[in-house]
Amino acid sequence: MATYSERMARFQALLRGKADLAFIPITTDLEYLTGVQRDIPNYGVTLHPGAWLEGAWVTSSSEPIIALPRMTAEFGGLGKIAGDVRVLGDWDDPAALVADILRGFGLPAQPRVAISDHAHAESVIQLQRLLPGAVFISATDILRELRTIKDADEIESMRHAGAVTEAAFADVIKQLKLGMTELDIFTEVDYQMRRHGSLGPTFTTSLYNSGPNLPLLHGQRLATWKRELWPPVSILFDFGAAFEGMCYDFGRTVAFGAPDAEFQRVYDLVMASQQAGIAALKAGSATCEDADAAARKVIEDAGYGDKFRHRLGHGIGKDVHEPPFLTKGSKTMLQEGMMFTIEPSIMQHDSFSARVEDVVLASPNGGIPLTSGFQSLIVIE
Amino acid sequence: MATYSERMARFQALLRGKADLAFIPITTDLEYLTGVQRDIPNYGVTLHPGAWLEGAWVTSSSEPIIALPRMTAEFGGLGKIAGDVRVLGDWDDPAALVADILRGFGLPAQPRVAISDHAHAESVIQLQRLLPGAVFISATDILRELRTIKDADEIESMRHAGAVTEAAFADVIKQLKLGMTELDIFTEVDYQMRRHGSLGPTFTTSLYNSGPNLPLLHGQRLATWKRELWPPVSILFDFGAAFEGMCYDFGRTVAFGAPDAEFQRVYDLVMASQQAGIAALKAGSATCEDADAAARKVIEDAGYGDKFRHRLGHGIGKDVHEPPFLTKGSKTMLQEGMMFTIEPSIMQHDSFSARVEDVVLASPNGGIPLTSGFQSLIVIE
Repeated sequence: MATYSERMARFQALLRGKADLAFIPITTDLEYLTGVQRDIPNYGVTLHPGAWLEGAWVTSSSEPIIALPRMTAEFGGLGKIAGDVRVLGDWDDPAALVADILRGFGLPAQPRVAISDHAHAESVIQLQRLLPGAVFISATDILRELRTIKDADEIESMRHAGAVTEAAFADVIKQLKLGMTELDIFTEVDYQMRRHGSLGPTFTTSLYNSGPNLPLLHGQRLATWKRELWPPVSILFDFGAAFEGMCYDFGRTVAFGAPDAEFQRVYDLVMASQQAGIAALKAGSATCEDADAAARKVIEDAGYGDKFRHRLGHGIGKDVHEPPFLTKGSKTMLQEGMMFTIEPSIMQHDSFSARVEDVVLASPNGGIPLTSGFQSLIVIE
Repeated sequence: MATYSERMARFQALLRGKADLAFIPITTDLEYLTGVQRDIPNYGVTLHPGAWLEGAWVTSSSEPIIALPRMTAEFGGLGKIAGDVRVLGDWDDPAALVADILRGFGLPAQPRVAISDHAHAESVIQLQRLLPGAVFISATDILRELRTIKDADEIESMRHAGAVTEAAFADVIKQLKLGMTELDIFTEVDYQMRRHGSLGPTFTTSLYNSGPNLPLLHGQRLATWKRELWPPVSILFDFGAAFEGMCYDFGRTVAFGAPDAEFQRVYDLVMASQQAGIAALKAGSATCEDADAAARKVIEDAGYGDKFRHRLGHGIGKDVHEPPFLTKGSKTMLQEGMMFTIEPSIMQHDSFSARVEDVVLASPNGGIPLTSGFQSLIVIE
């Protein structure tokens, strides 16, 4: 197991020669380096003073410092925090606290500052005020080479997130009834994921439903949520549970009503396509685009190529979509420790659709899926 | 009604003399200025190329330009987008597109660039590369003076968000049963909010439960979710619905089991405290700290001052917590169009707690609450 201090030491080594200072706010970058947990994000932001200094202040040679406003330190749900923690009092000046930290680091006059891509711009604005000559670069890019290759710990957590996801799905299936709405179903999905131990969905739980009498609609949630789902209709699930910060992403297809030949055909095709994609996930001997091509060929050869309208999959870990991507044009060689979704689909506007998705580990002999239940089409009648 | 183009024109006027360029990414700042909608955020981020240029590029004198990667433009759920939209192709270079936009603006050599506080740092990093001498300032600070004073449209949307919230709460009450878990209850809350038309909760729906046999716990969601709630216990709701981007924030207290004298006492105190706070929300003649003091006095005089452990409320609008805050030390004069939560509480670790919360509009004669149902303690037996 790579401890957090080992990960931090590796990051500090990468900083050498690239950046004089790094700021890592409360994001997956910080979670990866220190175990300090991000929270579930809100649709409406809760603004608070000093938010811009929340995170780790790191150089290649000093002990990292974690700075937090008191309220965040006490109520932020961050988990255990080790090391040198500096707490900003309710009435203190955040800039003064950061200036003090920076003095301790003894930075050059025009420092190169690495900052996470998903830090708030406010942090950069405030830092530029304190360090007028600073040149900002991406800390996320520097971390990427570490984060792309998952260690045994991360693989184990992802496997557990997959088990929670499948256990939730098994319980959702028991509750499915003809005539339910999409809202009824995704409420049940989110409930079951939490019941089985997930903090919440890793991304907005989504259903894509279509059939001869139910056109496939995208991006119109408030409308599609309320449609009652009566046979014949194909119901495509897309959701995932979180465990120790790892984000699962899973998909299966359910038939409301016995499937006709066309439905069974598109279902069998996506399952075969996924098997081809998994087999092609060969670390050391195939590229990202090779895997995409292998899976796509199955669907193209059957004449449905234009209905498979997206890349085969994406890297996944603490974020749901991470580079690299399994897509045409990506010559990135697959490596052991890389983890991807394999998620072929056939999407039809006025007919049946099908999709399947699992997280799969690249290995020399082909992909190792972390979930593999529910291979046959599930039929609710 | 202030149209979006009027809001943008006012913002452009404020930019004059302060900034040569502003970048407003997909945030509530952009929603306020253009109506382009933010989406529900995900726990696991979905990274994609070109995300850093998504938003509006604005100067004080040119037609604003909205830049979007193709995928975001097509599937981002942004709603209708008016004006000059520039779409980044899947294989195009985001920096080239932005450089082209900036050339059209004819910026000075060392421009002052205003950027939203909650933009991604990646946008600043990329902009500094294109404009090495740029000085970055907060666009959110510039917009704040507009956003703090709500117009008739925003007030009407917030009123509607309140109606959805109360309608959902009425339906939740019908489902409450002794022995439910916190997870059961907040699942029902989120379901009912969506059933009544909300895109989702405006922030993570929260319950704070306590009683002689059930200690009040904070920040331990996975543990508190699973506790069965049996009498006697006080159940404190904290949630809100969204409507047209406005975020409601609402609270009531429910008793599982008939309340004893102590429970009824703390309940009556928070309700009286809230009334005092609402009455003190006098635009033009009271400050933020005056309102806090008026509500706090009721609870302090009864000897529970140390159990009311937070400020009286916060500004609210498209974000859930916005400045100004109703707190000791805030000398900000209340103005018409300002909107706050009024949310006194008495929180007791090993006994009954109570809270109430509504959104209230400041007016010359005192506050006007946007919701006011459920004044009596709701008892489930």
